[in-house]
Amino acid sequence: MKKIPVLEIFGPTIQGEGMVIGQKTMFVRTGGCDYRCSWCDSAFTWDGSQKAELLTAEEIVNRLRETGGTSFNHVTLSGGNPALHQGIEEVIAMLKDEGVRTAVETQGSIWQDWMIDIDDVTISPKPPSSRMKTDWEKLDHYINHLKDRPGKRTSIKVVIFDESDLRYAEAVHSRYPDVPMYLQTGNPHLDAAEGEWLLKQLLLNYEWLVNQVIASDRLNEVKVLPQLHTLLWGNKQGV
Amino acid sequence: MKKIPVLEIFGPTIQGEGMVIGQKTMFVRTGGCDYRCSWCDSAFTWDGSQKAELLTAEEIVNRLRETGGTSFNHVTLSGGNPALHQGIEEVIAMLKDEGVRTAVETQGSIWQDWMIDIDDVTISPKPPSSRMKTDWEKLDHYINHLKDRPGKRTSIKVVIFDESDLRYAEAVHSRYPDVPMYLQTGNPHLDAAEGEWLLKQLLLNYEWLVNQVIASDRLNEVKVLPQLHTLLWGNKQGV
Ligand code: SF4
Ligand code: SF4
Repeated sequence: MKKIPVLEIFGPTIQGEGMVIGQKTMFVRTGGCDYRCSWCDSAFTWDGSQKAELLTAEEIVNRLRETGGTSFNHVTLSGGNPALHQGIEEVIAMLKDEGVRTAVETQGSIWQDWMIDIDDVTISPKPPSSRMKTDWEKLDHYINHLKDRPGKRTSIKVVIFDESDLRYAEAVHSRYPDVPMYLQTGNPHLDAAEGEWLLKQLLLNYEWLVNQVIASDRLNEVKVLPQLHTLLWGNKQGV
Repeated sequence: MKKIPVLEIFGPTIQGEGMVIGQKTMFVRTGGCDYRCSWCDSAFTWDGSQKAELLTAEEIVNRLRETGGTSFNHVTLSGGNPALHQGIEEVIAMLKDEGVRTAVETQGSIWQDWMIDIDDVTISPKPPSSRMKTDWEKLDHYINHLKDRPGKRTSIKVVIFDESDLRYAEAVHSRYPDVPMYLQTGNPHLDAAEGEWLLKQLLLNYEWLVNQVIASDRLNEVKVLPQLHTLLWGNKQGV
């Protein structure tokens, strides 16, 4: 059995973002990323500051049950970029056997066949403010392989920090008009302690983004969302 | 052409609640309600404090275009209880001709055949704290007529103020296990001015609800959401 580097397993909590926002879920956060986004909120998955544990699929599922008991039907694979890892197909299969649905978020830079088996796939290409470059052909391939899966769902999510990110999101949306699209406020204050100041900034950023979307007739179909967990718990890890 | 009592037409803004949370949408708020919920946040639709305008379907669609221009593809019918009104089928048909999708929210107490044509139907039965009584047979009929509509979506939303509301939501959820279920924090502070105090209370209530859902293995499948527009704009009407 292949081993997967895992940084944290926690929950149940709610999914604070994107296509299954509000859903009760467990999180499995894998280590490592092929990107280095300037504003990465999970840099501890790749900057060496925290050490991953190598776990088999069976160990991951056992750990999920030890932590979440019977209080979950949904598991979210997060990173880093979970698509770095083979062996995840076994996690998905074991959870499916127990009637547990799965979700993943990845930037769409590395393909894995197990993506097909995930119930809720969020593809999150990174806008200019991240300082990463999108490989459009790779992204085309990724999205075309995922968008029509009966009974399963695929969406695109773009985190927006500024107007050039917004133009990028419009380009993504017009390239894949049939794929449900989510815009999300970024959090430029990753070092802020929990508190009222951070909350106020996050809501101001969200209001700015809402107003931008309201004004653009190229973005009539998008959904604009904040990060609920950040509104609730600030920058705390593991919630 | 039948006339429909309309209290406000506004947008585009975002849908702050439920199954299409974050969606860019216009709102048409109709007057009148067959309920009198103790905590109704739209009491001005039925308590006589604001006067409705009688509009034909054509006038409503024209007003939507005057207000929203080309910056919307989605219209939400809200109330009051929009199901009080015949004539809404013409609004839906005219919008459909323009490629505009529709959503409605109703407590499920009064049936209208036009419900079938709405893209996103939210049925929101009222929990004990509202002091309203649920007619379960009527609700069965309602939900059974709506839940399997190819290409269209139906969900249940229950607003939660206290633990007995939560027990009610569990009962609703186990009666209709196949229908996507949303739990939403109530706003007990309808008279609060905009401001930090209200925001803090709303987030504390949301955190309480999240924790309740996390602890209940009868609520593994629900989505728990706040009201985004209230977080952004407090108790302001027309946003
Ligand atoms: S892709 Fe995600 S995990 Fe990787 S660096 Fe960017 S934000 Fe961080
Ligand atoms: S059903 Fe809705 S509009 Fe009618 S009284 Fe209750 S909360 Fe208010």
